[in-house]
Amino acid sequence: MPVFLDTTAADFEPAFQSLLSAKREDSPDVDAVVAQIIDDVRTRGDAAVIELTAKFDRLELTPETMAFSADEIAEAVARVTPEDRAALELAADRIRAYHEKQMPEGHRWTDEAGATLGWRWSAVSAAGLYVPGGLASYPSSVLMNAIPAKVAGVGRLAIVVPTPDGQANPLVLLAAQLSGVDEIYRIGGAQAVAALAYGTETIAPVDKITGPGNAFVAAAKRRVFGKVGIDMIAGPSEILVIADRDNDPDWIALDLLSQAEHDECAQSILITDAADFGEAVAQAVEKRLETLQRRTIAGASWRDFGAVITVRDLNEAAALSNRIAPEHLELCVSDPEALSQKTIHAGAIFLGQYTPEAIGDYVGGPNHVLPTARSARFSSGLSVMDFLKRTTLSQMTPEALRIIGPAAEMLAKSESLEAHGLSVTARLNRLNG
Amino acid sequence: MPVFLDTTAADFEPAFQSLLSAKREDSPDVDAVVAQIIDDVRTRGDAAVIELTAKFDRLELTPETMAFSADEIAEAVARVTPEDRAALELAADRIRAYHEKQMPEGHRWTDEAGATLGWRWSAVSAAGLYVPGGLASYPSSVLMNAIPAKVAGVGRLAIVVPTPDGQANPLVLLAAQLSGVDEIYRIGGAQAVAALAYGTETIAPVDKITGPGNAFVAAAKRRVFGKVGIDMIAGPSEILVIADRDNDPDWIALDLLSQAEHDECAQSILITDAADFGEAVAQAVEKRLETLQRRTIAGASWRDFGAVITVRDLNEAAALSNRIAPEHLELCVSDPEALSQKTIHAGAIFLGQYTPEAIGDYVGGPNHVLPTARSARFSSGLSVMDFLKRTTLSQMTPEALRIIGPAAEMLAKSESLEAHGLSVTARLNRLNG
Repeated sequence: MPVFLDTTAADFEPAFQSLLSAKREDSPDVDAVVAQIIDDVRTRGDAAVIELTAKFDRLELTPETMAFSADEIAEAVARVTPEDRAALELAADRIRAYHEKQMPEGHRWTDEAGATLGWRWSAVSAAGLYVPGGLASYPSSVLMNAIPAKVAGVGRLAIVVPTPDGQANPLVLLAAQLSGVDEIYRIGGAQAVAALAYGTETIAPVDKITGPGNAFVAAAKRRVFGKVGIDMIAGPSEILVIADRDNDPDWIALDLLSQAEHDECAQSILITDAADFGEAVAQAVEKRLETLQRRTIAGASWRDFGAVITVRDLNEAAALSNRIAPEHLELCVSDPEALSQKTIHAGAIFLGQYTPEAIGDYVGGPNHVLPTARSARFSSGLSVMDFLKRTTLSQMTPEALRIIGPAAEMLAKSESLEAHGLSVTARLNRLNG
Repeated sequence: MPVFLDTTAADFEPAFQSLLSAKREDSPDVDAVVAQIIDDVRTRGDAAVIELTAKFDRLELTPETMAFSADEIAEAVARVTPEDRAALELAADRIRAYHEKQMPEGHRWTDEAGATLGWRWSAVSAAGLYVPGGLASYPSSVLMNAIPAKVAGVGRLAIVVPTPDGQANPLVLLAAQLSGVDEIYRIGGAQAVAALAYGTETIAPVDKITGPGNAFVAAAKRRVFGKVGIDMIAGPSEILVIADRDNDPDWIALDLLSQAEHDECAQSILITDAADFGEAVAQAVEKRLETLQRRTIAGASWRDFGAVITVRDLNEAAALSNRIAPEHLELCVSDPEALSQKTIHAGAIFLGQYTPEAIGDYVGGPNHVLPTARSARFSSGLSVMDFLKRTTLSQMTPEALRIIGPAAEMLAKSESLEAHGLSVTARLNRLNG
C-alpha cells in the first residue's frame, strides 16, 4: 500500500517530511574497486580495457574489434523493422528540433566608458556518451544524450556500450547512427569511463562524459570529474501528478505506473484536491498491477514509495510540489497554465491530461535526462548547454582604461595585490605621461 | 628560472606535455575530518557550529551573535574610506550591468503537430556564498559571487565569512551590502558549509553554495554536492599571455606577475613569436621581482611553473593556447580580434594591450570566477546561469497526441516499458473510440 496523506490531518507535516526524506537508494560502496580499475586503464590502456571486458562482459576483444565497424553497424541496423525505425526517426527529428532552439547566442557591446564587453559560446571538442547494456539499454537515451551534443557542435562524439556475451541492441546502434555519433565502442563499466577520460592507444580522450549507468559507472564519473566534465549523477526516477477529479483514474494510474515500472526505487506521487478521486486512482493502480508485465518492480515501487496526498486546494498542491521539486510534474487540472506558474521547482512540466509523461520520455522533444532527488531546486535537465562553454570577452581602449583603471588600482591596493595594481598603473603612466 | 620552450626545438612536444601535466597543487586529504564536521553540524546544529568556531577561529559565538547585526555592519562600513567605497561601487555597478545582460529568456512555441513546447528559467530560492577570512578575504570575490545571484533573482542570499579572533574586513561587509546580501554569518570552514547545506536552528538551509575556500571548504562542498548545488572547485589561478614584439616588456611582465603573486601554485605563461621579446619579458619579470611586495610568492610561482614559449607564428600560438585551455588569456597582438577567433578554449579573453587581466579581476564587468586546470575545455566561469535552473514545458492537444503518440507506443514496446505505452494507448483509445 502506498502512503495516504491529507493536509488537514494533524500529523501531516511529519508524515510529509518523512516522505521527502525517505532514502530510496542504497548506493553500494564501489569506490575502491573503481579507483583500481581507473588506475589500471590509465597505466595499461587497451590491455586493461580488454582484460576487464573479458572478465565482466565475457567478451574477447582486440584493439581492432573494440569499435563497431561500419559494416557491423550497417548489418545490425538493417535488422530493425520499418516501424521501429520510423518511430525512432520521428523521435530524433523532434528532439533535434527542440534542442536546436536551445542554442544560446553570444553577445558583444560597447559601454559608456568605451569598453567592449561580451561573451561567446563554443562547443566542447570531444564528448563521450555512456550507454548501459543489457536490459537497461534504451535507444531513447542515446537520442537524448547524443542529439544535444551534435546540435551544440561537438566535433567528435564517442559512445561506449557494453555488449555482454557479444549481444548488441540494434536499436541502440540505429539511434547512434541517427544522432550522428562518430565512434561506438563495445566496452562498459568503470573501464569504459576511464578509457574516455584518459584515453588508450585506441580510444582518444574526450572532454566531457554524459549518460546513465550503474553504481560502478556513477562512481567512475565522480572520480574522473575535473579531468573531464560530467553530467549529473542521476538517481531513481520520480513523478508527481497533480490531478483534479475531472480525470480518468485509469489514465492517472498508468502515468504513476510508468515511473514505478522503471525501478523498485522509483517514486510516484499523486496530489489531488478530491479524496475520493485519490481512492479511485489507487484502486486503478491495483487493478493495472494485476496484469502489468513489470508488476513486480512497479508494485514494489508503488508499495514502498508511492503516495496519495489530498489537499484543500491547488495552491496547497503547488506549495507541496515546490517542496518536492519533482523530476517530472504532470498538471492534470482544468487550468494547467495557471498552476504551472506556481510550481516553480521541477525538471519538466507536462500540462493537461493529454500530455502523459511517457510522451516526454520519447517523442515530445524536450530532454528526458532530468534532475532527480529534489535537485530541480538548483539544477536543470540535459541540454545543448551541457556541451557548450562560455568565454567572456573584454577589450579596453586607452580612454576606457583611463576611466575605470583607477578603481582597479584602488581595489588591488585594498587587497594587497601590488602587481595587479601596477599592471594598470604602468599603462596609465604611459597614457598620462 | 621559468622554463623556456621553442616549438622549433626537437624536444618541444615532450617538454610542452610535461608543462601541461605538471601537478601544481598538493591537495591534503582532509576528507575524513570534513565528514566528521559535517555529521556533527547535521546532528547538533548551532551547538556544533559554535564549538567549532571557538576551536578554529578563537571566537566565542552564541546563536544571537552568529550573524552580523545591522548595527555592526553599519559601524564597520562607516570605516571604509570614500575612495575605497567609490572604487567598490564602480566595480559593483559594472559587474551588475554585465551580468544583467546574461539573463536568458524562456521560450514557448507550437509546432506542426500542435504540441506546445518550451522552457522557462527560474531562480534558485536560496543561495549561500563562502567568503574566505584573513588574508585571502577579497571584497571583489564577494561582488563576483553575490551580484550574479541577486541579478538571477535569488530570494535569500547568505554569506558565511570566518572572522578569526573576531577580525572582520569592512570592505567585505560593504561589498556584501552593495550586492544586496541578506544575511552574513561570522563562521567558516567545513562547519559553515555544513550549516548552509543542512541548516541549523539559526541558519536556514540553502539550495546552492558558491565561493572559494581552502582544502576543508573544497572537501565540504564536494561532500554536500547533491544535497545542494555547488559551483566549480577552483584550482590555482593561471594566465596565458600571447604577445608579439610590439609590446612593452614591463607591461607583459606585470601581467604575468599579477597571476604569480596570487599563490605559489599559480601559473603564468607567455607565448610570443619573437624570441628576443620573450627574453626581454623574462628580464623585466626578474627586475620587478626585486621590489614586489609579494616577491616570495610571485617568485616561487614564476620559477616553478612559469614558462616562455617561442612559436613560429600566431597560428601556432593559438593551437598551443587551445591545448592549454587557460583560465585567463591575454591577446597582446596587433589584431586581437582575429586571434581570438582561433583561441577557442579559454575562460576569459582580454583583447589588446590596454586590457590587463587585473581589469577583469575588479572592474571590467565579466566574472572573475573562471575555470582552472584546463577545465575551460568543458566549463564556463560563474554567471547568472549558476543561480538559475530551466524547467522544460510540454503540452499536447488531443490531435498532437494522435500524431506523435503511436511512435511513443512503439518505442515503449521496444524498451519493454509497458505502462509507458499504455498511458498513451488509454488516451488514444478514448480519442479514437
